[in-house]
Amino acid sequence: MALKLYGAALSPCTSRVMTCLHEKEADFELVPVDLFAGEHKQLPFLAKNPFGQIPALEDGDLSLFESRAIAAYVAEKFKETGNDLIRHQSLKEAAEVKVWMEVESQQYHPAISPIIFQFFAAPLQGYAPDQAIIDENTEKLGKVLDVYEDKLGRTKYLAGDFYSLADLFHLSFTYYFMKTPCAHLINERPHVKAWWEDISSRPAFQKVASAMNFGEKGN
Amino acid sequence: MALKLYGAALSPCTSRVMTCLHEKEADFELVPVDLFAGEHKQLPFLAKNPFGQIPALEDGDLSLFESRAIAAYVAEKFKETGNDLIRHQSLKEAAEVKVWMEVESQQYHPAISPIIFQFFAAPLQGYAPDQAIIDENTEKLGKVLDVYEDKLGRTKYLAGDFYSLADLFHLSFTYYFMKTPCAHLINERPHVKAWWEDISSRPAFQKVASAMNFGEKGN
Repeated sequence: MALKLYGAALSPCTSRVMTCLHEKEADFELVPVDLFAGEHKQLPFLAKNPFGQIPALEDGDLSLFESRAIAAYVAEKFKETGNDLIRHQSLKEAAEVKVWMEVESQQYHPAISPIIFQFFAAPLQGYAPDQAIIDENTEKLGKVLDVYEDKLGRTKYLAGDFYSLADLFHLSFTYYFMKTPCAHLINERPHVKAWWEDISSRPAFQKVASAMNFGEKGN
Repeated sequence: MALKLYGAALSPCTSRVMTCLHEKEADFELVPVDLFAGEHKQLPFLAKNPFGQIPALEDGDLSLFESRAIAAYVAEKFKETGNDLIRHQSLKEAAEVKVWMEVESQQYHPAISPIIFQFFAAPLQGYAPDQAIIDENTEKLGKVLDVYEDKLGRTKYLAGDFYSLADLFHLSFTYYFMKTPCAHLINERPHVKAWWEDISSRPAFQKVASAMNFGEKGN
């Protein structure tokens, strides 16, 4: 039975999980959740995720939420197929993957997500982007990227010389970020830029990115 | 060779890792980092964590940072000793642990940590607690705890009827939170209160809590 992923192709958290599913060559069905109708804030979706956020995954009678947890589950369940994203055969490499997954979650995401929110979500809600929020977070993100620049000058990917879930976790938010006027923060750091070009050109992400044309369509 | 944990006993992130080490009955040495002297923002500590935050762990030639990643590494490395915190023998239970570890990280922590900061860290830095920040985050935390109350009415612990890393991740921040005037948010929800009393009375955490008397000493 195929996995069912409840979400929306435009949602970076949904596309994070989809990218992982494609890397693992796993069969799945995307079941659209209508965010504009508030479907995620009502039953039956609230039974899948009581916090009312997409995505959620159903695998038989197992129901999961939180995109990073779902992706980690998928990477573990299918560890023998597709690319090994968690380095399960090496405790040491697996530990490095855990560290850089947490860096994305605790350092990178809190800086990049408010910037994306200001450029994409605020206008949809009728607000102009708040320049003070953008400035505060570009400064934070710049410091995080200085650490990445140094690390990526020493290893090809964040956790080591292997692509992993730690890199994958950055993809969908950075994809939107690169469409903002702040993209220079990536482009002006040569190792970060090369890393971004490498990971974003992977076929598994390309399949997902083609559906992420938020803000570029006429409607 | 014993593990070396670089941190401070008062730091909730250090104590998160220490609690996990005690649960696993692992030998370790706590190497104090002098935060007041800014030791965490200088070499050699910056070589252990380029983000300049405690704790960091050294296990032979492996050097790790980010408290949740370190704890997950410890739980994996010592999975056969002490309490099983990651449910490694069941893909399904392990997935539930992953989900609720992420809930702590993405939902609980962003709400509880600004409250603790206002009551404990702001005064140390010469500021009065900012009531607007406290109000905004107690409202957010209340909504998160409503979900916890429902879940803990159905299972004894967050990820199921077993204690796991997901519960453990909450301990040290909640310990400080319970010393603030906002503690009623826990106490007025009976299942959350029972859960808190249960997990905070575990011997592994009691060993750590005895050193967390921040703000209660004369100096």
